[in-house]
Amino acid sequence: KVQIENRGGNSYEIYDMNKITESSDPIRNKEEVLILTPIARFYPQYWKNLLELDYPRNLISLGFIVPSSKDGAKVHRELRNAINAVQKGPGDKRFADVKILIQDSDLSSGQSEAERHKFSAQKERRGKLAATRNTLLLSTLKPSTSWVLWLDSDIVETPSTLIQDLAEHNEDVLVANCFQKQGDKLTPYDFNSWVDSQTAQELASHMDRDEILLEGYAELPTYRMLMAKIYEEHKDPSTIMALDGVGTTALLVKASVHRDGALFPTFPFYHLIESEGFAKMAKRLGHGVYGLPYYLVFHHNE
Amino acid sequence: KVQIENRGGNSYEIYDMNKITESSDPIRNKEEVLILTPIARFYPQYWKNLLELDYPRNLISLGFIVPSSKDGAKVHRELRNAINAVQKGPGDKRFADVKILIQDSDLSSGQSEAERHKFSAQKERRGKLAATRNTLLLSTLKPSTSWVLWLDSDIVETPSTLIQDLAEHNEDVLVANCFQKQGDKLTPYDFNSWVDSQTAQELASHMDRDEILLEGYAELPTYRMLMAKIYEEHKDPSTIMALDGVGTTALLVKASVHRDGALFPTFPFYHLIESEGFAKMAKRLGHGVYGLPYYLVFHHNE
Ligand SMILES: Nc1nc2c(ncn2[C@@H]2O[C@H](COP(=O)(O)OP(=O)(O)O)[C@@H](O)[C@H]2O)c(=O)[nH]1
Ligand SMILES: Nc1nc2c(ncn2[C@@H]2O[C@H](COP(=O)(O)OP(=O)(O)O)[C@@H](O)[C@H]2O)c(=O)[nH]1
Ligand SMILES: [Mn+2]
Ligand SMILES: [Mn+2]
Repeated sequence: KVQIENRGGNSYEIYDMNKITESSDPIRNKEEVLILTPIARFYPQYWKNLLELDYPRNLISLGFIVPSSKDGAKVHRELRNAINAVQKGPGDKRFADVKILIQDSDLSSGQSEAERHKFSAQKERRGKLAATRNTLLLSTLKPSTSWVLWLDSDIVETPSTLIQDLAEHNEDVLVANCFQKQGDKLTPYDFNSWVDSQTAQELASHMDRDEILLEGYAELPTYRMLMAKIYEEHKDPSTIMALDGVGTTALLVKASVHRDGALFPTFPFYHLIESEGFAKMAKRLGHGVYGLPYYLVFHHNE
Repeated sequence: KVQIENRGGNSYEIYDMNKITESSDPIRNKEEVLILTPIARFYPQYWKNLLELDYPRNLISLGFIVPSSKDGAKVHRELRNAINAVQKGPGDKRFADVKILIQDSDLSSGQSEAERHKFSAQKERRGKLAATRNTLLLSTLKPSTSWVLWLDSDIVETPSTLIQDLAEHNEDVLVANCFQKQGDKLTPYDFNSWVDSQTAQELASHMDRDEILLEGYAELPTYRMLMAKIYEEHKDPSTIMALDGVGTTALLVKASVHRDGALFPTFPFYHLIESEGFAKMAKRLGHGVYGLPYYLVFHHNE
């Protein structure tokens, strides 16, 4: 599907996009997966879990973006050590490609106000995070990528078959259900995966163009159906539901959805931003957006 | 600014985005330029003009996307021949990188209806062209790219200093004025670069969410100020004007504008699509959008 010629450092590549499949059997079809993680803190468990993913490493590329702050420099060091250990190891254990970006703006600016203006701080923070995700995506997506897995840096436990489990459903956009674990106790964590409600649409219809709806704020109840609240034990993990908003904790996206132009809005888009705005944009482009209410991944316990 | 290690085909790259400058002196600062062209027809004069650009080739990457039709296959052959002649030639005459993508959908579908539904055909056509541009951009932009030059395949004549002339203004988004030439006679060609009008905004305010405004249709006069109509001879070519819509005939964009998430909307975005929607999105993200009314580039004469 790809022809690459390299003449003394000058490359000339031809890609037939018709042959870049995005199928329910990604391993058999040798589909390339790009795992993207904006990372403000390095959790060894995140890395351990990533290394345990049971998908051919030579088909996996990794992309990270770290803040250009002192904290970011620390994350960068930790990440480099972790990556070096793998990429200097045996050839068949190496990832196809690893890119680290040091971002040119710092998200944390203005976070001192977080306590005073919780809602508005969140709006600014998620807007900047959206731009950070877009920068990461636009700098790492290759013509040959079939799938993009968005995996937040604080996701410390997933099934090792995460990629193929999600891809198997062959949906354009599919998100797992993200919980926290304390011993045996499970607590819903990610409230960005939801089904829209009449109340939320009603609220949005009276809003200024620049206002946004955010989930999980008592001062603005939306009565959306949250995927995190639907989870029950002993249900079929392959059960699928249609969603209107998604989170990025563990989100699989067909690369063609991003290539069509579905990104993370940094500005209010239908009164939504970042990953929730992404779901809206993907739908606006005619793609399907789904979630797996009974398929769990676990967020670091704060 | 970039650290690349390559261990037996497995690469590991670190990019400090703070060091990727986008300056008014791009040659001195060794800034990488990505020239992007969706191409449905190969014009030898386009290629000739491209080769005459007076910017260091080792800093230029080229990206093309061709339709996956019979016509596209012909374009592909012509393009390959042209590229091979350069990339097999002397090392210092080669472009840093050339990518050709064969798109997975064909724009021409539905074009048989063009005569019956001119306006609506245009809406579908430009929507698909937007997705084609997004695919090209998302597959070719590198972390190290400073500037993206959108150059349509039917632009057959530009100043050889096009890149540095546009970059010199150091604007986020800057478009040249596109004309046709017949002997000495100049005719305005690209009507997508404009300043919004009260009439157009009034029209838009009464439209359905899915309707779009297009420039140059007698049945829907917008009274926007068209940059093409402002041109006069013997004026200062470095004169700059603020715009609300832009065309892509010769359009220079800071890579960070795209990285922030400004793409070509395939769906009505503030009742605009494709390059006009891109201008709106760039502005929505806080970027400046400008044009050079007295700086001409020339479109093939149909
Ligand atoms: N590069 C970068 N990543 C960030 C920044 N802030 C958060 N992140 C990452 O973005 C993802 C989501 O952020 P997080 O704080 O976990 O959000 P929450 O769990 O939804 O409250 C995680 O992977 C973070 O590590 C930042 O300033 N820069
Ligand atoms: N890949 C691809 N490019 C196309 C297609 N149709 C047009 N283009 C290119 O898109 C650009 C703009 O199209 P063009 O027909 O010149 O538009 P106009 O001059 O504004 O009417 C040109 O570079 C075309 O070669 C298509 O179906 N596929
Ligand atoms: Mn988190
Ligand atoms: Mn044209």
